[in-house]
Amino acid sequence: MEEDMLPEKDKPAVSIVKIGGNVVDNPETLKAFLSDFEKLPGRKLLVHGGGVMASKLSRQLGLEPKMLQGRRITDAETLKIVTMVYAGWINKSIVALLQKLGCNAIGLSGADGNIIPAKKRSPHPIDFGFAGDPEPERIGTEVLARLLESGLTPVICAITHDEAGSLLNTNADTIAYLMGTALSSTYTTRLYYCFEKEGVLKDVNDANTLIPSIDKPEYLTYRAAGVIADGMIPKMDNSFKSIEQGVSEVIILHAKNLLNGKGTRLVKGE
Amino acid sequence: MEEDMLPEKDKPAVSIVKIGGNVVDNPETLKAFLSDFEKLPGRKLLVHGGGVMASKLSRQLGLEPKMLQGRRITDAETLKIVTMVYAGWINKSIVALLQKLGCNAIGLSGADGNIIPAKKRSPHPIDFGFAGDPEPERIGTEVLARLLESGLTPVICAITHDEAGSLLNTNADTIAYLMGTALSSTYTTRLYYCFEKEGVLKDVNDANTLIPSIDKPEYLTYRAAGVIADGMIPKMDNSFKSIEQGVSEVIILHAKNLLNGKGTRLVKGE
Repeated sequence: MEEDMLPEKDKPAVSIVKIGGNVVDNPETLKAFLSDFEKLPGRKLLVHGGGVMASKLSRQLGLEPKMLQGRRITDAETLKIVTMVYAGWINKSIVALLQKLGCNAIGLSGADGNIIPAKKRSPHPIDFGFAGDPEPERIGTEVLARLLESGLTPVICAITHDEAGSLLNTNADTIAYLMGTALSSTYTTRLYYCFEKEGVLKDVNDANTLIPSIDKPEYLTYRAAGVIADGMIPKMDNSFKSIEQGVSEVIILHAKNLLNGKGTRLVKGE
Repeated sequence: MEEDMLPEKDKPAVSIVKIGGNVVDNPETLKAFLSDFEKLPGRKLLVHGGGVMASKLSRQLGLEPKMLQGRRITDAETLKIVTMVYAGWINKSIVALLQKLGCNAIGLSGADGNIIPAKKRSPHPIDFGFAGDPEPERIGTEVLARLLESGLTPVICAITHDEAGSLLNTNADTIAYLMGTALSSTYTTRLYYCFEKEGVLKDVNDANTLIPSIDKPEYLTYRAAGVIADGMIPKMDNSFKSIEQGVSEVIILHAKNLLNGKGTRLVKGE
């Protein structure tokens, strides 16, 4: 792709926003968030999860969800459930709400237009079932760019496919990271990770301990000291990786702060 | 739109194929059908149902499906179920299978790209709940044409929306008719209704009584005599309406005959 790359200043901008279960699972929170998202100027793309709702449907159907290291073990029946919930109900509900707001949204899974081909994860050492690991260099940026340039706003759920007929379940944070990284060859990309905290906090229970800006060496220091831990680690690792791979800015923030941008800004550093 | 219309001979062609529950519900039949569909030359678009699977999920969730005059009564919970099944599992499974065959499919509901805005049906005389009636002149032909001209194959499920944030359930035969009619301003459109019979039969239990070709006066005669009855009537009415509104050809046929085109050809007549 090297020869196709434009100098950063000549590239149009695109915002990639990821929302997690806490936003998706509450109709009022979702509506408030989408109203802000619609106001975000310029080209944009939404990536969503929906794990809580998938687990709920799973239990209703008598199938106890199995999680390991924060990831869902996806057997054939669970694949059907997550596809119905993510690509079906949640994705289309978001699209209908955005259409109401005048945003011409188009809902997609990774199979649609082959935008996110993935490899089924090896069953060793842990068999996660139908879990897909996509690669940034295989993302269908051409189809995505064509949709964006047509004035459409892609709404992407965390379902991918193996190009051999199987759908696969993929982490939504990973999808957002991939979108940011892959689209950065054509666009100046800004990545927003919206979640239920104000951003990266020194004390997870105190919103006043927000770290407004952080670079990689600082992150590694915080991580070594145990200040940044648990679910924050893969999010931060993915974010710094995306910055190293061309994303201009990553902001980790509370969903309610999307428009003011208040949160933790990840910077490239030295 | 009148001024944009090209003379018929200068229009590119598009095939619109509708498959019903009998094809969708059996994995082997679906695979065989999609393998034929992929081979259909030129621009094409697939419309699918999935009612049997929706009724099954409904029962699994303890909700007995309610049908009236062959249409589903769609309360809020049923709307969620049909959206999960049609726009989620069935739509994305079809897209993944087509991608495997090298067909660059993109799965859409009527909310996506606002391709099928609809009106919620009046609750009088019968309250069908979240049932949507779309109008041919409001179909998003511009977005559809852009996808087709990009080499993408739209796969459309029978979910529409009211542009006020609500998804709606719409009959898949109606969607196919609307696609054919709306796209005929830009394309020469051919409409294939695939189902479990050889075509329109004089005796529904005898495949040898196939009517190879039928025009409107003949249809009305058969209907008056009770030869064509039940579920065939709305299919035929929609088909003749679409021919009157610009569709060049409608073929009603068994899904297995898609490539040889053997079935009942509806013609404009005098």
